[in-house]
Amino acid sequence: MRILIAQSGGPTPVINASLVGAIKRARELGHEIFGGIYGIEGILENEIIPLTQSNVELKKIAHTPGAFLGSCRHVLPDPGDEEYDVLFDIFASRKIDAFLYMGGNDSMDSVAKIYSEAERRHFPISVIGIPKTIDNDLVETDHCPGFASAARFLNIIASEFVIDSISYSRPSISVIETMGRDTGWLAASLKLSEYLVKGLNVLVYLPEHPTSDEEILHDVQRLRNKNEPLLVSVSEGVVDKNGNYLKSAPILDSFGHPKLGGVGEHVASLLEKIGRVKLVNPGFTQRAASHTVSSVDFQEAQMVASFAVDVVSDRKSGFFVGIVRKEMNYLSTVKLVPIGRVANRVKRVPEKLLENNMKGFIEYLAPLVGQMPEFIIR
Amino acid sequence: MRILIAQSGGPTPVINASLVGAIKRARELGHEIFGGIYGIEGILENEIIPLTQSNVELKKIAHTPGAFLGSCRHVLPDPGDEEYDVLFDIFASRKIDAFLYMGGNDSMDSVAKIYSEAERRHFPISVIGIPKTIDNDLVETDHCPGFASAARFLNIIASEFVIDSISYSRPSISVIETMGRDTGWLAASLKLSEYLVKGLNVLVYLPEHPTSDEEILHDVQRLRNKNEPLLVSVSEGVVDKNGNYLKSAPILDSFGHPKLGGVGEHVASLLEKIGRVKLVNPGFTQRAASHTVSSVDFQEAQMVASFAVDVVSDRKSGFFVGIVRKEMNYLSTVKLVPIGRVANRVKRVPEKLLENNMKGFIEYLAPLVGQMPEFIIR
Repeated sequence: MRILIAQSGGPTPVINASLVGAIKRARELGHEIFGGIYGIEGILENEIIPLTQSNVELKKIAHTPGAFLGSCRHVLPDPGDEEYDVLFDIFASRKIDAFLYMGGNDSMDSVAKIYSEAERRHFPISVIGIPKTIDNDLVETDHCPGFASAARFLNIIASEFVIDSISYSRPSISVIETMGRDTGWLAASLKLSEYLVKGLNVLVYLPEHPTSDEEILHDVQRLRNKNEPLLVSVSEGVVDKNGNYLKSAPILDSFGHPKLGGVGEHVASLLEKIGRVKLVNPGFTQRAASHTVSSVDFQEAQMVASFAVDVVSDRKSGFFVGIVRKEMNYLSTVKLVPIGRVANRVKRVPEKLLENNMKGFIEYLAPLVGQMPEFIIR
Repeated sequence: MRILIAQSGGPTPVINASLVGAIKRARELGHEIFGGIYGIEGILENEIIPLTQSNVELKKIAHTPGAFLGSCRHVLPDPGDEEYDVLFDIFASRKIDAFLYMGGNDSMDSVAKIYSEAERRHFPISVIGIPKTIDNDLVETDHCPGFASAARFLNIIASEFVIDSISYSRPSISVIETMGRDTGWLAASLKLSEYLVKGLNVLVYLPEHPTSDEEILHDVQRLRNKNEPLLVSVSEGVVDKNGNYLKSAPILDSFGHPKLGGVGEHVASLLEKIGRVKLVNPGFTQRAASHTVSSVDFQEAQMVASFAVDVVSDRKSGFFVGIVRKEMNYLSTVKLVPIGRVANRVKRVPEKLLENNMKGFIEYLAPLVGQMPEFIIR
């Protein structure tokens, strides 16, 4: 059997662990496996390479950030479009029996479309979607490979710089901006830092809960009065009650052009009315932090991709591999979900996890993130 | 013997390793040891605690970022001022025989002043300065505890996000802003990433070398044409030929007030003329990153403080503990330097280390930083 695998969307710290999981399983089963360069974009240009790396190289690749094969943000047209003539000609000429695509919501849309088009053409190819996103917003899976590692990195650096910030007799307010345009999984994950830093209060602002400058000022003022360390975690996608991103009037750059200040910058300048503020915007480091990968995340990233190879070995097609949590703390397995149930849907943070000072969220998150540093504060 | 120890200036990832080194050595020698809270600022308020932590706690404290005892930026007046009446009354009433102060240039000025004042008063106290600064700009020491760990963290996150940035077919230009207002040690340290990421070019801009927008644009354009990954490392203290910080005309915030955009932001917006740019400004995370401490740095941070306890046990006073490199790759020891030779002086990056594409700098840095992650790029 000849398997083609490719990576799509924003990388995660474990996207290459999935790649390596698929390569290893394919070899175990005696399949040939090939990589599409720059996702579907490169495949359409016939940029396909054999994956012949040694075991030593595979181990290093699994711990390398970025998308080893390259990635893209290409949106496929609806089934029936002539772009599929190109794609299926390449599948045919390369004698591809199975296509595995790693990605988030948009990439699962590509998987669904390629599956539909294959059905329409009666083209014998197994098409399977493998989850991957630090945003953790895919449905039909307990969580997404990549999320736990990003959350682990964010909590490590946040707890470190919060502790740094209380070195002085007049501690500053710490603000962190996390990725998550549509959902607040990563912003919410910072709540875990309350368990890492004694006395720390973490305020969390998610796209799921529209807010306002006044509300944020009020919340901070209330906790600030206690004179305890304070971390304000804001998702890049936080909106006001009208659904507009919470940000300042356009900031003008040196050329007088409007400059997009992010939510973090806006909240930081807002809170400067109250006290000294230190803003950290980890940006792309949070999706690239392979040095702080969660071991559960690393193992599951391999597991979902390895299972996808088993699935195509059975000639099944049109599925997504989801993670099922069997024990809260902690045992997981995989399941198959029809791809149509996953594509283009978004899983927001459920209210239930946010109740009681986010008790449910911490129970959900802590086992995924795994062991964390232990700090002692005076 | 009763020893008082305190921490001053910006924390480093190993400032508490030094504290623990001193506590352990003091106990071994049968001394009592006390901690001044918030550096000299708290000592002047008689905020002094016994350091009675258990060995288990000490181990955790050594790996905790921030200044465990608290820090300050208090500048002492010249010897003879009445502030010293308060200070020496506290030394006397607390029966302090020795005072150890951890810090950078400014803090070594405090050590020099307290030593002079003690001489002037014929007050029997041993005063010793312990080096600590991620900026690495103290003279009379091969390097400063804290620098190697900050450089290690910066190179890890920079190489990770550079690899992330080449995931797409049109890679972006990566820009990182490092700390270092007066010297470029940390900005220069990013050159090491060329050895971590295959094909990467790193351009380095230091306060030691005044530059201009035109020069930076020219340098980037020249390397950018090669279509290889590119990292631009700028120190926060980079200046133009007139000695002014290289930054944009004031950016206006949402209230119309001028906003201090840093050098990194300026360079990023400059380079947007050439291509897509991704800026990372690690800010305070670089001095708080205890999770990526260099093991050489951790060991030396303990060594200098432990040696300082030995020195005061001999009733010596008015010295600074420097690190001597005995073998380039790598063996080090300690030396005593009269404090007057260190206070208020700044060690800039020597030209010699920057020659031949910074060969000397890498030979100097690599053993301090220690083992780094290994990545594989396609």
